[in-house]
Amino acid sequence: MRTQVVIIGSGPSGLLLGQLLTGAGIDNVILDRVSKDYILGRVRAGVLEEGTIHLMDRAGSGARMHAEGLPHDGFSLAFDGRDHRIDLHELTGGKRVMVYGQTELTRDLMEERARTGAPSIYAAANVVPHDFDGHAPCVTYDLDGTTHRIDCDFIAGCDGFHGISRKSVPEKAIRSFEKIYPFGWLGILADVPPVSHELIYANHPRGFALCSMRSQTRSRYYLQCALDEKVEAWTDQRFWDELRRRLPAHHAEALVTGASFEKSIAPLRSFVAEPMRFGRLFLVGDAAHIVPPTGAKGLNLAASDVHYLFEGLLEHYQDRSNAGIDAYSTHALARVWKAVRFSWWMTTMLHRFPDTGDFDQKIQEAELDYLTHSRAASTALAENYVGLPF
Amino acid sequence: MRTQVVIIGSGPSGLLLGQLLTGAGIDNVILDRVSKDYILGRVRAGVLEEGTIHLMDRAGSGARMHAEGLPHDGFSLAFDGRDHRIDLHELTGGKRVMVYGQTELTRDLMEERARTGAPSIYAAANVVPHDFDGHAPCVTYDLDGTTHRIDCDFIAGCDGFHGISRKSVPEKAIRSFEKIYPFGWLGILADVPPVSHELIYANHPRGFALCSMRSQTRSRYYLQCALDEKVEAWTDQRFWDELRRRLPAHHAEALVTGASFEKSIAPLRSFVAEPMRFGRLFLVGDAAHIVPPTGAKGLNLAASDVHYLFEGLLEHYQDRSNAGIDAYSTHALARVWKAVRFSWWMTTMLHRFPDTGDFDQKIQEAELDYLTHSRAASTALAENYVGLPF
Repeated sequence: MRTQVVIIGSGPSGLLLGQLLTGAGIDNVILDRVSKDYILGRVRAGVLEEGTIHLMDRAGSGARMHAEGLPHDGFSLAFDGRDHRIDLHELTGGKRVMVYGQTELTRDLMEERARTGAPSIYAAANVVPHDFDGHAPCVTYDLDGTTHRIDCDFIAGCDGFHGISRKSVPEKAIRSFEKIYPFGWLGILADVPPVSHELIYANHPRGFALCSMRSQTRSRYYLQCALDEKVEAWTDQRFWDELRRRLPAHHAEALVTGASFEKSIAPLRSFVAEPMRFGRLFLVGDAAHIVPPTGAKGLNLAASDVHYLFEGLLEHYQDRSNAGIDAYSTHALARVWKAVRFSWWMTTMLHRFPDTGDFDQKIQEAELDYLTHSRAASTALAENYVGLPF
Repeated sequence: MRTQVVIIGSGPSGLLLGQLLTGAGIDNVILDRVSKDYILGRVRAGVLEEGTIHLMDRAGSGARMHAEGLPHDGFSLAFDGRDHRIDLHELTGGKRVMVYGQTELTRDLMEERARTGAPSIYAAANVVPHDFDGHAPCVTYDLDGTTHRIDCDFIAGCDGFHGISRKSVPEKAIRSFEKIYPFGWLGILADVPPVSHELIYANHPRGFALCSMRSQTRSRYYLQCALDEKVEAWTDQRFWDELRRRLPAHHAEALVTGASFEKSIAPLRSFVAEPMRFGRLFLVGDAAHIVPPTGAKGLNLAASDVHYLFEGLLEHYQDRSNAGIDAYSTHALARVWKAVRFSWWMTTMLHRFPDTGDFDQKIQEAELDYLTHSRAASTALAENYVGLPF
């Protein structure tokens, strides 16, 4: 088989890139080692920047998102027993974010792909990109007992942190940067109305808490926890009790509790691999970088990578210019590092670090105090939260 | 002897408080353990916020400062071979800072004090504040072989980090917060014209550098250095060579060098003691807090303490209300911590830390990149640099 672009990974970034390419008449095939249902069973965050929303529209997959997503004009920073609203809409001159689950977004993209007839191959074993340092790359995979091969012009590695794409690059060609945070997030999903119609990021002496939601009837709550915590040790009752302790009184009193149907612990990590292009292989999204979830940048950063790569490929095929793909790594990384910085800063400002001394604790409190009293500092937070321009 | 307020320390904060009190008809005596000439021989920074300038005017000591001081509307952040101007005036809606040496400011305040006839006692040995937890405090000191005693209503401890005032407070009554930075500043004074008419804060792989000035013919330059460096190891030539390496090329080429007449190494420290009031003893300026010089907040923070304390004492004597002095520690510390945070942040963003990993280094670069591209972030920097409101 031959195509123009092979996309490894059928998560949001692979699907978004695929549909943008398909819309522009550029042939592409998506390969994924797991099944469609497996992908749709993954629980992920879902706070979309306007740039991401715009790409979903451009990919022809925005209708349900606009109908069912919840536009948010602000969020709360809770600390010291009170909460302070960050008015995103007012501070950024009219921008907002959209709460829409990543699973839903993935489903919409898959359905649009099926409608356009663009090929996706699921449950493809042993996917391997080859010869991307030359002019004739290809990707092989095993399916139904046979090894298949797709020749192509380019390979987009959209297969996440643990995927084969980055691992296929010689180790010495990559420089990686990493920070592991000394805590995790214990998260639950429950079919209860959210405690507030906007997100609450809470800094508390007992640890960070986040009140988020998927819809007006489904809540997503997180608690900072030690890395060695076991999810089995957390009954629903214990979770709700601990969450109440970390929220300002008026929220704690308003909290509606109920049985959770998902409960898990995730570690927090910052990771960046440089560069993001190796010949005819491009790394996109989590394949190249991971951010801690504080600030909701992961999915949006994948979308901005898709934007740069799509524009570069469009230039290549339509204008016969490689300027865009040659600049892909530089352009994508400039924005990546700003989002990595923002996510690191939000994480640092909102969590309790086990090794934090008294001075650093006071600095954290001074930062929250300054941030919530300075329009300039609030604006800097808001412009990062709604997403810096592509 | 009896007075209303004994001020321990004849540095800028003691003198400023003294002249404000004298102007308001409140009797005060300044005591210092060293001589006038010794104080005037100390080399200190001198970037004044508008609030400090206003207090100098109110103390009747602003004439020479306005005539000889250099108003600065901006400064440069130099990194990655280029420099980026922070336009303080434009970003803050018309505010600026004034470059005027602390020694000159101290001299002006001393001269005004002499003119008003308010008493200052220099070379007073063994100054000790007593009974400030009761209603009748006093201060004793030795002079000319005799122990003297001044009864008073209040004691203002303006005697710096190593002074007796903070040391007179029982250790358990104070909570202190400290951060020692793993480097120092090697500074020189030379009678050469400044390399630029505005300050340059340079982040360089070899370490931080600062180009400052005292006047249009006297320059003050600093280099980040290891804590164990010896000043004797730094000839003028070595200093100039190293400074040139850390500046963008156009500045390095423009640098005018010459013989230095002062050369010293200072450690960098953040320190805050809480509270700042103990009965009838108030700590002011360096007696309560130290900031690293990055951002030029030390003198200005002392001035804001003086402002809060002066307003409190004025309320006490004129309105018979203790509300102001009761709130002194809370009000002063709220602003202190914001300036401590700012100085810590500027220091962290501009210096190379010996133990910084690759990730943290990239975060520093991303921060500088974001800061110089975002109006909101530049405004937050500028509003702190010109000084947050009292």
